[in-house]
Amino acid sequence: MTTRSANSSTAPIKRPRTIQIDSNGRLRHFIAIEGLSKSILTEILDTAESFVSVTAQNVKKVPLLRGRTICNLFFEPSTRTRTTFELAAKRLSADVLNINISASSSSKGETLLDMLRNLEAMHTDMFVVRHSSSGAAQFIASKVAPHISVINAGDGSHEHPTQAMLDMFTIRQHKPDFSSLRVAIVGDLMHSRVARSQIHALNTLGVGELRVVAPRTLIPVGMERLGVQIYQNLEQGIRDVDVIIMLRLQNERMHGAFIPSEQEYFQLYGLTEKRIALAKPDVLVMHPGPINRGVEMDSAVADGEHSVILQQVSNGIAVRMAAMSMTMRSRADAEGEA
Amino acid sequence: MTTRSANSSTAPIKRPRTIQIDSNGRLRHFIAIEGLSKSILTEILDTAESFVSVTAQNVKKVPLLRGRTICNLFFEPSTRTRTTFELAAKRLSADVLNINISASSSSKGETLLDMLRNLEAMHTDMFVVRHSSSGAAQFIASKVAPHISVINAGDGSHEHPTQAMLDMFTIRQHKPDFSSLRVAIVGDLMHSRVARSQIHALNTLGVGELRVVAPRTLIPVGMERLGVQIYQNLEQGIRDVDVIIMLRLQNERMHGAFIPSEQEYFQLYGLTEKRIALAKPDVLVMHPGPINRGVEMDSAVADGEHSVILQQVSNGIAVRMAAMSMTMRSRADAEGEA
Amino acid sequence: MTTRSANSSTAPIKRPRTIQIDSNGRLRHFIAIEGLSKSILTEILDTAESFVSVTAQNVKKVPLLRGRTICNLFFEPSTRTRTTFELAAKRLSADVLNINISASSSSKGETLLDMLRNLEAMHTDMFVVRHSSSGAAQFIASKVAPHISVINAGDGSHEHPTQAMLDMFTIRQHKPDFSSLRVAIVGDLMHSRVARSQIHALNTLGVGELRVVAPRTLIPVGMERLGVQIYQNLEQGIRDVDVIIMLRLQNERMHGAFIPSEQEYFQLYGLTEKRIALAKPDVLVMHPGPINRGVEMDSAVADGEHSVILQQVSNGIAVRMAAMSMTMRSRADAEGEA
Repeated sequence: MTTRSANSSTAPIKRPRTIQIDSNGRLRHFIAIEGLSKSILTEILDTAESFVSVTAQNVKKVPLLRGRTICNLFFEPSTRTRTTFELAAKRLSADVLNINISASSSSKGETLLDMLRNLEAMHTDMFVVRHSSSGAAQFIASKVAPHISVINAGDGSHEHPTQAMLDMFTIRQHKPDFSSLRVAIVGDLMHSRVARSQIHALNTLGVGELRVVAPRTLIPVGMERLGVQIYQNLEQGIRDVDVIIMLRLQNERMHGAFIPSEQEYFQLYGLTEKRIALAKPDVLVMHPGPINRGVEMDSAVADGEHSVILQQVSNGIAVRMAAMSMTMRSRADAEGEA
Repeated sequence: MTTRSANSSTAPIKRPRTIQIDSNGRLRHFIAIEGLSKSILTEILDTAESFVSVTAQNVKKVPLLRGRTICNLFFEPSTRTRTTFELAAKRLSADVLNINISASSSSKGETLLDMLRNLEAMHTDMFVVRHSSSGAAQFIASKVAPHISVINAGDGSHEHPTQAMLDMFTIRQHKPDFSSLRVAIVGDLMHSRVARSQIHALNTLGVGELRVVAPRTLIPVGMERLGVQIYQNLEQGIRDVDVIIMLRLQNERMHGAFIPSEQEYFQLYGLTEKRIALAKPDVLVMHPGPINRGVEMDSAVADGEHSVILQQVSNGIAVRMAAMSMTMRSRADAEGEA
Repeated sequence: MTTRSANSSTAPIKRPRTIQIDSNGRLRHFIAIEGLSKSILTEILDTAESFVSVTAQNVKKVPLLRGRTICNLFFEPSTRTRTTFELAAKRLSADVLNINISASSSSKGETLLDMLRNLEAMHTDMFVVRHSSSGAAQFIASKVAPHISVINAGDGSHEHPTQAMLDMFTIRQHKPDFSSLRVAIVGDLMHSRVARSQIHALNTLGVGELRVVAPRTLIPVGMERLGVQIYQNLEQGIRDVDVIIMLRLQNERMHGAFIPSEQEYFQLYGLTEKRIALAKPDVLVMHPGPINRGVEMDSAVADGEHSVILQQVSNGIAVRMAAMSMTMRSRADAEGEA
């Protein structure tokens, strides 16, 4: 279930690493956590830190990307994710172009590459890409003109790197030493691009111990090769952990019967206050949203003292501002050289 | 048909007054005209006055809300109303986020409160709410974080306060002394949130005499308790009035047979030049738009010398700028105190 | 197939010339190429020239239209065209309002004129109009308030003047002397508003020789009166030409069987590298996009050394900035006089 196998049906693609990092070792595109170094991930977190104050103040703007045009290319609708990228772009003073592909000229038979070439010719600076197919953002990054940066806003069941980094940011705010942490990721590992990104991020940042907890049907083959311990029992899986990351049941992406029923799922894998008591007393409870209350967790847990779910949302703006400004800085350097 | 009875099916809610006014007596949310004092209504009109020149000049911008994020939360589509709020926000230099709820993650089973909490966590500053259910804006105002202001852009058949205030503004431009005015509101009182807001506004501003004119089927039970005189005959109802406010036949909100036919309605309640002659020679003719020409009024009336319908639209921007800047000033004061 | 006959079913309208040019001889609306002088067309090209550098630099903004509101009135959806106008407006620092008419209050029975009056009352400054009916933009221009400019973004099978001017701009970049040029326009002349605009522009700019190439079914009656030579054979039509302008097969606008099949069309009229060899060695190949690869031309031609298709897209922003700023300058002059 590596990047390569997830994309096995498409033409062979360059390793993310080659594409994501420029010749100066800077982040040029942000497609996947896999392949990025600890120092790059840390730079993203540190840059986001500098933006947290911007987004909290009254005039929530910095002029870093003034006059730049950022294009949200959403092949799969997601109001929530688009909104966070749009806000991040506007707080960097960029112009935003929202393009919903199903509504666009793809119905006129235009190819994806022709559409990209056209947007490039209009001097857009960045594509934020959301797509239902794994590998789409990387494919686009491999094809764009040298002056364009691509950020993956979720591709199939592959990666969702900005979501993982906002999770890392939120963990670090509360528990800065990753090496001492025991983290459990709970839920639909099979369909979750977020989980894949989180596992790579936690491993790269040197997490102490990483567990995944799910019914056998929701654990992809080969998961153990990613350096995680697999639990099928929730109580055992979250015992003494510092962080519980709940995943969303991706009902809209489940094309088969992976779980018996939502009720039964909650009984076995739903997070309750009683179960949280098994973890560390200061355990953090995280969820990428939107929450299915009563399925993945009790409302009391979602709104409880351990929950940092809304901090995740808030940090999401700063992390996206960081990804945007870093990839643009890479390009500005390149322009300086040329 | 007061606010309370209109919301009888929902949980008991605080009176608008408590929610709308902050501890310094300033407008914190703008949910309903009912419960607001004459001095607040007058402050809205005076503030709007100061914005009229802004919207007419070439560079139609003031930096009052620069860096603030205003979120149009439209649970009921309305291009026209959204457009006026969007223009008002942009002319105050705010960033605007348009969220159409039917198209958003509500389809993913997210609760309304979770959606609000998420938008709050993204550091939005204001929700402009349009909803088909009476009480929705007030419910949201009762739940939002302390740093957020809510403006009601129309909730069910309850209120549409900015529309009423732009009507008051337009009347005051032409006839500044409300106490000497005789005003008739004509048409579908039953389904009109605008009418309810207008009646409260006119009463609070001390209108001389207030009449409503409609067939019995379109007058809600208990209307006379609002201090109006009820007429079923149009000729009698508009005799010697200073202002005629026509309401829109809300065909899209009529789920039954309230009127026999549009033709018959026009015969009995349609405004014609002949009928206008019964009113004062300088009578103002108003309509919230969009007009059903030939149903509520003749085209000659809509475009005639008495019509101030387009002035209403124009004043709508200034009044919305006033509501936005006043509610934000309330919040800024609160921040200063904290 | 002149403007008049294309609009024969509507009420008689003023000649475009009268409407487009103000009393100082300046461009006030931009509705059609037909009727504009060579000096106006040249002024558009020269003004666009001055904007090419703006759109290529990092901060792609000039403050020319700061605080102005430009309204995209799209009665016919077109993400691509709307996007280019939106980018052009933002690079001039204007505020942009996108109004998709099918989604707006037209469903509430509002008339077009009432909608225009409302948008005018909101102090918008410009309408960019796209409509499936020939004459729509001109009709709107004939009805708007004196402070509003109208730009035609495509009306039925009538004109698409900004597209034609970006084509002229692209030709002039490579081959500045129109009088020495032999140009062939190839394809669906019948349904193409672009072709009509191109023919008028090339004639007015004094092109040396102008050919159209199409099957008889796709050539409108009376085309020869526009000063073109008609070819039904592609090889003959493009022999020794300096520029080949391919048109898009407007499948979505063909309500009958004008061509036998796409395969057969390509065999007879598709541009291939072999056929290009018949033209001048430095021939330019143009297409308004989106391309139907394998129908109008081979992929090798679309992406080949003669293709200037992406330059057309890029120049489209600058040309639209020129049209917007010129029509607004006309209005500013009028305001200065008043």
